[in-house]
This record gives sequence, C-alpha cells and structure tokens, in this order.
Amino acid sequence: MAAKTSTTPRSDRFPFELVRPELERVEASIRDQVRAFDSAVEPYVSYVCNTSGKRIRPALSILSGGATGGVTDDHLKVGVILELIHMATLVHDDIIDGASTRRMVPTANAKWGAGLSVLLGDALFSHALSLATDFNSIDICRKVGQAAREVCQGEIIQTQRRFDLTLTKAEYFRVLEMKTGALFASATGLAAHLSGASADTEQRLFNYGMKLGTAYQIYDDCLDLVGSEDVVGKTLRTDLEKGKLTLPILNLLETSNEAQRSKLTKRIVNQEPLDLPVLVGIAEYEGALESALDTAQEMLGSCREDLSVLAPSDHADALEQITWFLGALLEKCRR
Amino acid sequence: MAAKTSTTPRSDRFPFELVRPELERVEASIRDQVRAFDSAVEPYVSYVCNTSGKRIRPALSILSGGATGGVTDDHLKVGVILELIHMATLVHDDIIDGASTRRMVPTANAKWGAGLSVLLGDALFSHALSLATDFNSIDICRKVGQAAREVCQGEIIQTQRRFDLTLTKAEYFRVLEMKTGALFASATGLAAHLSGASADTEQRLFNYGMKLGTAYQIYDDCLDLVGSEDVVGKTLRTDLEKGKLTLPILNLLETSNEAQRSKLTKRIVNQEPLDLPVLVGIAEYEGALESALDTAQEMLGSCREDLSVLAPSDHADALEQITWFLGALLEKCRR
Repeated sequence: MAAKTSTTPRSDRFPFELVRPELERVEASIRDQVRAFDSAVEPYVSYVCNTSGKRIRPALSILSGGATGGVTDDHLKVGVILELIHMATLVHDDIIDGASTRRMVPTANAKWGAGLSVLLGDALFSHALSLATDFNSIDICRKVGQAAREVCQGEIIQTQRRFDLTLTKAEYFRVLEMKTGALFASATGLAAHLSGASADTEQRLFNYGMKLGTAYQIYDDCLDLVGSEDVVGKTLRTDLEKGKLTLPILNLLETSNEAQRSKLTKRIVNQEPLDLPVLVGIAEYEGALESALDTAQEMLGSCREDLSVLAPSDHADALEQITWFLGALLEKCRR
Repeated sequence: MAAKTSTTPRSDRFPFELVRPELERVEASIRDQVRAFDSAVEPYVSYVCNTSGKRIRPALSILSGGATGGVTDDHLKVGVILELIHMATLVHDDIIDGASTRRMVPTANAKWGAGLSVLLGDALFSHALSLATDFNSIDICRKVGQAAREVCQGEIIQTQRRFDLTLTKAEYFRVLEMKTGALFASATGLAAHLSGASADTEQRLFNYGMKLGTAYQIYDDCLDLVGSEDVVGKTLRTDLEKGKLTLPILNLLETSNEAQRSKLTKRIVNQEPLDLPVLVGIAEYEGALESALDTAQEMLGSCREDLSVLAPSDHADALEQITWFLGALLEKCRR
C-alpha cells in the first residue's frame, strides 16, 4: 500500500510554515482574549493564554481556509475558538492527572490548586462558546457546541475505562475520535464551511481532520511507549501506570492466548511487576507496536484521498504535507 | 419604606404551585437529556439529572413567559438549559468544596472522584450550550453563553477572594450578580424575549431576575450564619471556615474600629479563635446582620417595582409573590 511504503515527507519545510503570519495573528488574538474577562479573572486567563502551544487546530483551519478559496479573518477566529476549547480541556486534564508542569511551566493546577483550575477551565470554555456567537451563524454555534460536547464525552469514557481490559479497539478509536478527532475535524470542516465550499468538500475536509486527529493520537500513544524523553521533552511511560490502554497494548491483548492474557492482566491491572521496557519489548516482538503504526499510516493514506477533492494550491499541499510529516514521526517509533 | 415593613406574603400558596404541571415537564425533560449522551456517559449524567433541585431557574422562565403573553415550550426549554448550566456549576462546586453530599445524596465527587466530576460538569455544560442552538436564534445563544461566562467568572472571583478582608461590598455584590444573578436574570429576561415582549419589558424582567438572584444569595449567606441545620436540612456555618466573606461580616468590618478590625482579622483570617456563635452574636449586636437583611429587602422592593410594567395576570402575581415569600424567609433570619 502506497500509504505505508512512501513515508518520506516530500519537503523538509514544516507544513505550518506557509501560514506563519496568520498563526502569529492567532497567537496575538489568544493573548487578547483576556480583555473579555473581568479584571479579577484576567491574570489567570492571561497565564494560560500566554503559555505556548503547537496551535495545530488554528493551523488546520487556516490551511483549510486557504485550500478552499482563501484565508479570511473568520478562519483565524474559528481557529482561536477551537484552540480555547482545547486549552480549557488541558487545564482540566492537568487537574485529573495531577500534572505539575506542561510545556516546561507550572500548570494552573500546580499554581492555584484544583478549585481555581476547575473554574478557569470553565471560564475559557464558556468564553469560547460565547465567541462562537460572533459569527451570527447558528450553524457554526451548533457545530462548535457539538464538538465541545464530543471532547468532554471522549474524556469521560477514557477516564472511566482506565484499567478496563474489556475495552475494544472500536471503543478505543471512538474515544480518539471524540477527544482529538472532533476538534481537528471541526477546524478543517468549519473552515470549508466558512469558505462556502460545497457540502461534499466540507464533508471530505471534516473526514480528513477526524482521521488526522485519530492518527495523531495513535502517534502520541505509541510515543508514550517508545519515545525518548530527551527528544520529546515531556514525561513518557505514564499511560499504562494510569491504566490508559493504547493501541499497541490492545493489539497485544487481541493476539494473546489465555496464559499470556492472564500475565498481561496481572501486569496492567495489578501493576505487578510493571516492567515497562519488558512490556514494550514484548509488544514490539509480537508485532503489536508495528500494527498500531500501520493502522495510523493507513489513516493518513485515507486523509490524502480526502484531499483529492481540493484544487491544487500551496495550502492544499501543506495539508497533504502534514500527513507525510506525521507519517515520518510514526516511522521513528518503529524499532 | 414599604418594601421593608410589609413583609408578609399575601398568600400562603407557594408561588411555584401555579406552574406545577410545567415544572413536572421540565423535570421529565431534564431526565430525558441523558439520551443525548454517549451510552458510556449516560449513567453519570443520569445520576446528576435524577437528583432533585428547587428548579428555581425553570420556574422563573415559565412564570415570566406566562406573565408576558403565555407559557410556550420555548420557555420550558430555556429553563432546562439554564438549569443544566446551574447543575454543571454545582458538580464543579462540590469538587472545590470537597462536598460529600448534596440534598441528602452523595455528590458526583464523592461517588466517582474529582477527575470524572470535572469532566461530567464539562459535559453538562457543553450540552446545555449545544441545546441553546436548537432555538435557531443567535441572540439566545449569545445571551446563554454570556450568562454561563458570568457564572464561571463569579465563581473564580469568589474563590480567589477567600480570606481577603479587602473585599469591598461593591465587589461582593458583583460576585453575587455574576454567580447567581446572571442565570436568574437570563431566565426572566430570555423568557420575555421569547414572548416577543418589548425591549423595556425584557430589560425590567432581566433586572427583576438579577436583583432577585442577588437577594436570594444574601439570604443564603445570612442563613449560613444564623439558620438552624434541623430546619434548613444542610450543613451550615461553613462560609467563614472557607474564608467566604458574606454581607453581615462585610457590614461588621465596615463599621469596626481599628482594634475591632484587628480582632476580626485574627478570627477570620487566622481562624483563632473562630467561635462562630460569638461572632454571630457580635454581628447581630452591631446591627450588621439586620443591615444585610434590610439590603436584601430593599432589593426585593425594587424587584416589585420592575414588575409594574406587566399586565395583571396570575403569573405576574406569582412573580411578585416570590419576592414576598423570600422576604418572609429573610425576616426569619432576624434575631
């Protein structure tokens, strides 16, 4: 399959480079959001809005706007809204995980405790949904609201199914679609909608975002198992300790015999002994890691097919480039 | 002042009785909301949606609808949306306060921990804002979104200003307006909006809700100081332990001399010795409690003036009746 064999990006240029000026405006706009809050709340919002992020969702909406007729302020704005929802979920995730740092700086949870962080996430969240009403389009409010609901539900299911070895792969994919796919797909789909693209183009771009988000999350899951902390710059090997079942582990469980399953259960559920390098070694030996990476590469191939509806443009190229870029990262996880 | 002297409700009938059938439909609709969630999330939402509540916000929107032309399904729906936002904030409040029971049943926090409760509140919240898009009115989405934002900001300021004796009375009132007034005012104001009432009537009903919510919160604050747990049915005297400054205490601080202020600071900030019955006795002796109750009664009088724009009706009467009912409760706090 072409999608699995050609995994070299066709260019070394990072695909977001094309829209760097627009991303800088997004960054300024995110910082500007503090002004919409009561002065007593400003410092908290400001702290969160000034921490850096990859801004993947705004980049996707801008690139999709450019690929469907041209980037407008509306594409930047929808990117800001989706990024604020994402930021709200990060603030809340950090409470749930008891995380003390994110991207090298103390989390809101570490700085002000869980109580204030719960409320800060809520404030960002409700602000984002208020901001969506600026479009004067009930359709856009509805789509943003639904995406936010999906993200929340995905997080609930993920939290609830920790240490649950009956989790099926279908359920795992559904969680990834909800918690990461929904916002990626909103970024690409809404951008097409704002450009006045055809229903088919909007749907194809929505599908592209959904699969890209899912593949990205599979990459993140694999990275947690096999990545190098020095290179990645964040704490790894935490998923299994928290009982989070990822695709390589689900693949391993699927192909295990009864005795093996019992051993895995003991290691994962009772964490005795949870020797992660050994478990990763087994997952790799059994092809479970490889199979997870293959699944993600297939999704990226399918993303590229979705892009075939777009007229040729630098922005459409960059959207394709993202899939090659992520594909190359996936390949680095192969042992 | 008439508002302060005539404090007897003109009827013994509880003012929500008039709309009991509609409130039963609201109750059923709240229970029905679980169907909108992924099956894995349903049990959590169901638990929260099946716990009882006073349903003040839906009652206000239904009564205001009836008082501005007639109750429609839209008035019930906006009541459900505002109640869901309120429920989301209660779920989050219980995390912040570490509360184990609410209305006699275990809180979500006690049942499933803070992590899941954070997400459950988020899911209710995003669902409510999604539901608002059903009206196909950007105006309604905007007003609901802004109210939600106000509530979150009010809660942040309240949390942030705990144990802060520099809190002014103006700031205290602003917090009450944000955390309780905003949703009450949305219930009454949006109901008038949905009835197609004039801008003036909508504004007057909005003002009625804002002051009613503020007076209600002052009552709640006084009750925490002087209420009887047997009668009220919930744990009292917790505000000061949590550093929450209420109107009687702010009144007391305002009239205190330097030596008294230093004593109060020691008791409130360092909690040494925090003998609450003594503190309440002092607040009462100095007239600080009475003054807080007077303030709330004045607000209720002003609420009644706002209602003067309404044509006579049973529903308009019931809205007025609420102010007398709350007024009578306030009087019970006088020693």
